[in-house]
Amino acid sequence: MKNDSMHREKTDPREMLKNLGMNVTGKIEKVENPEITLPIRTLSNVFFDEQNKLIKLGDKISKRTYMNVAHTRKFMQTLLVAAECKKIIDQNVSTSIRDLYYALKRTIPDTNENTFEDQNESDPVLEDLEAALNTLREKLHLQADRKGYMAGNILINDTGDEIDCSKMGSSGWAIPSNAEPDVIKLSKCDAKFVLVIEKDAVWQRLNEDKFWRKHNCLILTGKGQPARGTRRLINRLHKELKLPVYVLTDADAWGFYIYSVIKQGSINLSFLSDRLGTPEAKFIGITTQDVQKFDIPKNVTIKLNEGDKKRTNEMLNYVWFKPKEWQQELKHMLQVGYKLELEALSAKGIKFISETYLPQKIASKDFLP
Amino acid sequence: MKNDSMHREKTDPREMLKNLGMNVTGKIEKVENPEITLPIRTLSNVFFDEQNKLIKLGDKISKRTYMNVAHTRKFMQTLLVAAECKKIIDQNVSTSIRDLYYALKRTIPDTNENTFEDQNESDPVLEDLEAALNTLREKLHLQADRKGYMAGNILINDTGDEIDCSKMGSSGWAIPSNAEPDVIKLSKCDAKFVLVIEKDAVWQRLNEDKFWRKHNCLILTGKGQPARGTRRLINRLHKELKLPVYVLTDADAWGFYIYSVIKQGSINLSFLSDRLGTPEAKFIGITTQDVQKFDIPKNVTIKLNEGDKKRTNEMLNYVWFKPKEWQQELKHMLQVGYKLELEALSAKGIKFISETYLPQKIASKDFLP
Repeated sequence: MKNDSMHREKTDPREMLKNLGMNVTGKIEKVENPEITLPIRTLSNVFFDEQNKLIKLGDKISKRTYMNVAHTRKFMQTLLVAAECKKIIDQNVSTSIRDLYYALKRTIPDTNENTFEDQNESDPVLEDLEAALNTLREKLHLQADRKGYMAGNILINDTGDEIDCSKMGSSGWAIPSNAEPDVIKLSKCDAKFVLVIEKDAVWQRLNEDKFWRKHNCLILTGKGQPARGTRRLINRLHKELKLPVYVLTDADAWGFYIYSVIKQGSINLSFLSDRLGTPEAKFIGITTQDVQKFDIPKNVTIKLNEGDKKRTNEMLNYVWFKPKEWQQELKHMLQVGYKLELEALSAKGIKFISETYLPQKIASKDFLP
Repeated sequence: MKNDSMHREKTDPREMLKNLGMNVTGKIEKVENPEITLPIRTLSNVFFDEQNKLIKLGDKISKRTYMNVAHTRKFMQTLLVAAECKKIIDQNVSTSIRDLYYALKRTIPDTNENTFEDQNESDPVLEDLEAALNTLREKLHLQADRKGYMAGNILINDTGDEIDCSKMGSSGWAIPSNAEPDVIKLSKCDAKFVLVIEKDAVWQRLNEDKFWRKHNCLILTGKGQPARGTRRLINRLHKELKLPVYVLTDADAWGFYIYSVIKQGSINLSFLSDRLGTPEAKFIGITTQDVQKFDIPKNVTIKLNEGDKKRTNEMLNYVWFKPKEWQQELKHMLQVGYKLELEALSAKGIKFISETYLPQKIASKDFLP
């Protein structure tokens, strides 16, 4: 496959962009119809890779050509984005996807046509390019959103600055949007596992109790669905430092979905699953089965609404929720008819989560797969 | 005024909470109707303090009594929240407002009544208590949301950890939810001013160019409307370190509103304006008048919609937008019929903002008041 062989040839994004441009200009010089080969990124070309346990992009490709009037606009946009990315890399700066849009938006001379009408046109083109070059936008010097924090016994080197994540006070280290190895180096780590926490408030609670010191771990929050940089960091902590990863979310469809994205990636970014997913991650909690196990008062549970029930029924059919432990939990949730949030553990006392719940779960290896 | 004299007597939140409880139990022991005095927090009791240039809470008070059936539920809730806050302070831990709700939610024995139905009931009670005690939730050991970042030549001491904000790599120092002096100490600062930036992407752009080093300043972003901790930090940087504060937002109603909240506080949290507002802050940009001044291409401006026009017309009447420079800008915006985002400056090149726009604005003191 042409696309694949290109990947093997070159992995430097600048070279790959140059290559893409040379292919197009080469065709034009030969008065041929220039084309760009792109992987198809729709559901029809996404599959669950049973061996690697990751959501992967299939090998269906499409060609975007200049001389097809249905493609011309997108062809132009793809080249504009590619050229701007190369320019940004050449200048050795980085920018946001919103800036990219603004830098490229203009009226084409002697027409009423704009290059891009709004950012909804430039964002998918960028994802196409990431997929086509098999690279990350971070490697194209484009910043994704960021919002995660981490604390624990690890030294990070960020663009030359050495940061000790065990000395970051109440706020922790802010995980940057770009957590690629050329920017973020994992210098030295004494921690034995990573605890990924859905909610920042719970992270702050655990940081205040210095949970990471007592249990010699890293505590990390993505503040909801983790941004790309946070998922990449989790992936690297596991791959490079061999740290087990335990995920702590609400016991609801959204929490379980966050876990599944951390573990096997997402459909939307399926071409990045091997860099953003961590298939060996385990689910530490909370579950609806914890209510009985830990004697959590029933009145802090939340009744499932119709949307919750529908979602939970859908999840029963997802291939990554097929393991019997997950089937059991999802069916239990439907049976008892409630969900619960991490904060519900506070009903057992403010320190219950750090002094009882988590230590007990970890000691007994009471995880879902 | 009873409420005011209580403030003067005690400023330790624990003592104030104890006081509140003692007043109630004292009344009960005397078989009198217990009551709690609270400031009224609606628009009718909010005014713009011309002298201090802050939105302030007036002196109207209301009494919440136990023996009034319309008050009984709220009276109970107020005491529950107050008692839980005292407990949290006594344990020397802190928690989130969501945790607070969960810790207090229960069914009252032998009834079908819950103490709180949802968090929308406990949040306003907490704000009542903050206003009544003239304190911050942070002082009650409750965390607000957090999302800001800062970089520059300043040493911060956070709960014993010394953090050098000039050595925080690409991500900067994460501003914590609680930026009160007992947690965050401003140890040493060489910077000469503070640049507050609405958008994180622009902050990252400036951090990458090490703008703060070249211009010896602190760069700070609130990622949209700054959280309370970020506003408190801006307030302290100005008050304690005498640093001028310049605010950089989009040229639109939302950006101008963000500036106004940083400067004179908000109606909702009017009782905190003197701790969260920075009346001496100046607006550095961007403005619709910058389009001509800096030759920004027209096609990166965004046409005002009906909502924008309505909002801008409203703002013309706000007392804090009465200075002639603001009247001129708001009228100009309506006249040209467009708004623009910070990223629009990228149309002039990726480094235009850091190398031309900001240095020129600062050198010529081209600020709005």
